[in-house]
Amino acid sequence: MQYTAPLRDIQFVMHELLDSQAHYGKLPAYQELDTDTVNSYLEAAADFAQSVLSPLNRTGDMEGCRFEDGNVYTPSGFKEAYQQYCELGFPAINADPEYGGMGLSTSLGSAVSEIMGTANWAFAMYPGLSHGAIQTIEHHGTEAQKATYLEKLNTGQWSGTMCLTESHAGSDLGIIKTRAVPNDDGSYAITGQKIFISAGEHDLTENIIHIVLARLPDAPAGTKGISLFIVPKFLVNDDGSVGERNGVVCGSIEHKMGIKASATCVINFDAAKGYLIGPENRGLNCMFTFMNVARIGTAIQGLAAAEFAFQGSLSYAKERTAMRALSGIKEPNKPADTIIHHPAVRNMLLTQKAFAEGGRALVYYLSQFADIVAKGENPAEVKFADEMLSLLTPIAKAFLTETGYESANHGVQVYGGHGYISEWGMEQNVRDTRIACLYEGTTEIQSLDLLGRKVLGSQGRLLANFTKIIHKFCQEHSDDDELGQFIRPLAKLNKQWADVTSRIGMQGTQNPEAIGAAAVDYLFFSGYVTLAYLWARMAAVAKAKLASFDESLDADKALHGEYGFYDAKVKTAEFYFAKLLPRHAVHVARINAGEETLMSMDVEQFVF
Amino acid sequence: MQYTAPLRDIQFVMHELLDSQAHYGKLPAYQELDTDTVNSYLEAAADFAQSVLSPLNRTGDMEGCRFEDGNVYTPSGFKEAYQQYCELGFPAINADPEYGGMGLSTSLGSAVSEIMGTANWAFAMYPGLSHGAIQTIEHHGTEAQKATYLEKLNTGQWSGTMCLTESHAGSDLGIIKTRAVPNDDGSYAITGQKIFISAGEHDLTENIIHIVLARLPDAPAGTKGISLFIVPKFLVNDDGSVGERNGVVCGSIEHKMGIKASATCVINFDAAKGYLIGPENRGLNCMFTFMNVARIGTAIQGLAAAEFAFQGSLSYAKERTAMRALSGIKEPNKPADTIIHHPAVRNMLLTQKAFAEGGRALVYYLSQFADIVAKGENPAEVKFADEMLSLLTPIAKAFLTETGYESANHGVQVYGGHGYISEWGMEQNVRDTRIACLYEGTTEIQSLDLLGRKVLGSQGRLLANFTKIIHKFCQEHSDDDELGQFIRPLAKLNKQWADVTSRIGMQGTQNPEAIGAAAVDYLFFSGYVTLAYLWARMAAVAKAKLASFDESLDADKALHGEYGFYDAKVKTAEFYFAKLLPRHAVHVARINAGEETLMSMDVEQFVF
Repeated sequence: MQYTAPLRDIQFVMHELLDSQAHYGKLPAYQELDTDTVNSYLEAAADFAQSVLSPLNRTGDMEGCRFEDGNVYTPSGFKEAYQQYCELGFPAINADPEYGGMGLSTSLGSAVSEIMGTANWAFAMYPGLSHGAIQTIEHHGTEAQKATYLEKLNTGQWSGTMCLTESHAGSDLGIIKTRAVPNDDGSYAITGQKIFISAGEHDLTENIIHIVLARLPDAPAGTKGISLFIVPKFLVNDDGSVGERNGVVCGSIEHKMGIKASATCVINFDAAKGYLIGPENRGLNCMFTFMNVARIGTAIQGLAAAEFAFQGSLSYAKERTAMRALSGIKEPNKPADTIIHHPAVRNMLLTQKAFAEGGRALVYYLSQFADIVAKGENPAEVKFADEMLSLLTPIAKAFLTETGYESANHGVQVYGGHGYISEWGMEQNVRDTRIACLYEGTTEIQSLDLLGRKVLGSQGRLLANFTKIIHKFCQEHSDDDELGQFIRPLAKLNKQWADVTSRIGMQGTQNPEAIGAAAVDYLFFSGYVTLAYLWARMAAVAKAKLASFDESLDADKALHGEYGFYDAKVKTAEFYFAKLLPRHAVHVARINAGEETLMSMDVEQFVF
Repeated sequence: MQYTAPLRDIQFVMHELLDSQAHYGKLPAYQELDTDTVNSYLEAAADFAQSVLSPLNRTGDMEGCRFEDGNVYTPSGFKEAYQQYCELGFPAINADPEYGGMGLSTSLGSAVSEIMGTANWAFAMYPGLSHGAIQTIEHHGTEAQKATYLEKLNTGQWSGTMCLTESHAGSDLGIIKTRAVPNDDGSYAITGQKIFISAGEHDLTENIIHIVLARLPDAPAGTKGISLFIVPKFLVNDDGSVGERNGVVCGSIEHKMGIKASATCVINFDAAKGYLIGPENRGLNCMFTFMNVARIGTAIQGLAAAEFAFQGSLSYAKERTAMRALSGIKEPNKPADTIIHHPAVRNMLLTQKAFAEGGRALVYYLSQFADIVAKGENPAEVKFADEMLSLLTPIAKAFLTETGYESANHGVQVYGGHGYISEWGMEQNVRDTRIACLYEGTTEIQSLDLLGRKVLGSQGRLLANFTKIIHKFCQEHSDDDELGQFIRPLAKLNKQWADVTSRIGMQGTQNPEAIGAAAVDYLFFSGYVTLAYLWARMAAVAKAKLASFDESLDADKALHGEYGFYDAKVKTAEFYFAKLLPRHAVHVARINAGEETLMSMDVEQFVF
């Protein structure tokens, strides 16, 4: 499927919904990001994604990565594409200008990531992982470490990885076994095996900088005894050039469901030379810096999956004919009507559209908070933004990847039997995006983070920050009849959000398992309310624009042009409220049903 | 993953829930099927499926089918396994004894299919398709046609296919183009291209008998101008031996998401010699015989997906450790607790269990109606059974494949990142089972069949047949306090089913699109109620058994043995009612939201 960047909608969200001008205007670091400048970056990303990355999406899947004697060869065309990607400066977009970065905002970076990732997620994994390593070194590295690694990473000449998982330890990093023993020269000898290392080995760059979690000798057990190390594939000479090979070898690559063009590596460290980054035993804390970024990145994969599925489904639904519409023949010159006339198909298209556009709004909305956290100058605003980011990140990560996966599956379904066949790209989208609900913390882990750590852990303060914003929005529009269909249910749900939270909090004091039993449903409930807020805001913006159009507008022109765009936005909001938002009620019912039916069965009774 | 046939649960459903003894006792054709006989067939199927088919499941996926010069080579081991399958007599289980069949019941056949299919669905496709051809010839063939083909098909020496779909015509068979021109000898020259032909070409049998939909010259347009033909790959000599090659060639096989060991073929007919079966222009009607069978077969794939996922997830959840239970350490001798102690994991396991066991109950329940349709001797009972089969088949097909797919996805999720890796089998289960929601009529097509044709098309009579059964069950147990938690919600939903139906019927008279807009949600609603009925019945049976146990039963023995089995059955029913059944409400809300938000957007406004 040829991808087309949905620039009109991206600009709607950035400029019209989220008023990027006013937002960047308040942040001196991003002053130069006026609308035209933003748009020119978006267009450059769209050009590259459409012409270079999109054509490599399917061939990359078919060819996959090849492993041979510790080396990994990426699919045909990836090397050239990566070179071009670097020449165009994309790896450096968000990076520190002091080290060759462009210092642009996270929110612009998110839009660029969306465009690249929707065109070809497997490709986007390579620079994506570097991004994590860059962030970690920027925030926790010494000046010398920054000088050694950052510029090469920012230009894309080197790439980076995050080496966390071990075969027995994924969600629970407290039990990792990789060891770091001090060498005489102040470095450490790192020994252990890491798995699921994306971009762990490949042929795109001359060096790979691994960020590795390991235990110092006599470190305390559990999460408080883990430190972070920089372990380059090739040691770096004093002049910054690539030196001798370090004791880091790729043992194999995984055969997996999707993102086959992204190498998922087993990496063996055999007394590899590593350098401590950040304080001893505080490695997991340092990782949290990176984790929010990585989780937003993964949330984008969910939105990308919905957008990709929508584009593919729409083309097909406008072309494929089957049966006549129940309300009468729509296309008498064809043997049957195109399937876009059938309500079941429209339901799937609108679901994809509502999740793609709603997901875009959520990702860009929270990315603006990340901008403020990074470059805000008012401490109170920075603190508030940081809390909003903390609250919204697990929602965005889990809710958008789950709804993105649902949308991807609708993509297969719209195509019928053809959706199951590789050539159309719909089944690849399902396979590629399935991992988004797993990596960077599964949906279940995100849920515990949201409910346990963020909401209950702050005694509800983080949630109240957001429900106040929603409340204020509802108040502001309480007299607006046009918006009543959105405002009334939103205001009610916003109140219910607080009620549901208190109820779980109380249940949790009686029985701690109640938190775990409620968490996933709580996350979905939160996701549906969050998207309802953003859809209501989008409807408000679109309605205001529609009111400014001349009533005598020619009908045909209206549907194709800007009027049609805003009108479709309102109709999609109506669809969201009528057909998707009702799902929140199941999650409330499941929460209310409590933990008993989950926990009552004895482990021994689970048999087959 | 090594599959283990869940014989205890299969026997519970067949013998205890559905009283196979009484059922077969009323059907003279199945008199010999006493409990021991049934069990011995089940054990034979389990032995073969576990030892021969299960080990070929993953290797078949990895190797796939190979296409070369019109020939298709199945993966290593398939030929030998197929031979053994035939030697053990499995192809002939349900077939007519007059032609070498064993004449056993559909309900026993369903259990055997479940066992074979869960072990290795791709393998099961080959004999599965023969089954369709056999049924078609049994019901519509002339004596000569039966004599020529049936015995060879029943022994598995030959296999069969169903050639319906063309590249432009899937759900809408009315627009197929394949032509049949009369030859001088009473046969027809068949010309056209069919796609998605499962088992269309392979190396397992010496001949392949295609059942082909085609148009006679001057046939009326649409569904009323389609006839059915038998087109063998090799023509059959008068002595029954295989003769010269017919004009039937496999053009290619599809590269697809899953069931890679099952060859999905493009079959080109070039003036191939074919023989009319059934009346001219009534081909689609003849197909309906087969379609119910095929749809039950596909419903079994849904149940198989849930069972397979449950088995894989359970083994992993009892072994994999991560974090401590929120209510305190469960396994102090391990570095962390096994994940079966975490409520989110239990939620997924119990969901799989509830859908697998509930799906099994539904498939076997409706298969008993198929038994009565086939061999009942009381015309009123046969008519009633036929109506129940008509009503329940689209529910079972769509609801069980969708919930099976959901369960398969939980399988990946329980494994975390490992679920995405091929070696564990969980991602293969997702890929293999995704097609079940597509072929033999998509979920959307099943929904229209249920709501439009079956329920509204019978003015509600077919639904009333079933709601009366449920009503009677609720009445019978209305005084049973133990069962009140199941009976009360079931009785309420049963009433709501009729209400929802009338409301849609009325909406439909105003706007025909309302039917299409409601259909998928109506199907899911129906599925949740149907499974609630079966889970309530299972709970009733299990509670009665529990009451018969000695109260002084040793606790440990109790959990491992029969007491534990029945107790788990009740707890799973409680889980179903508390955590899964609430989903019905979303579907009602969506139905009530009507068709407007689906249909209001102009086709031109769907853009990106």
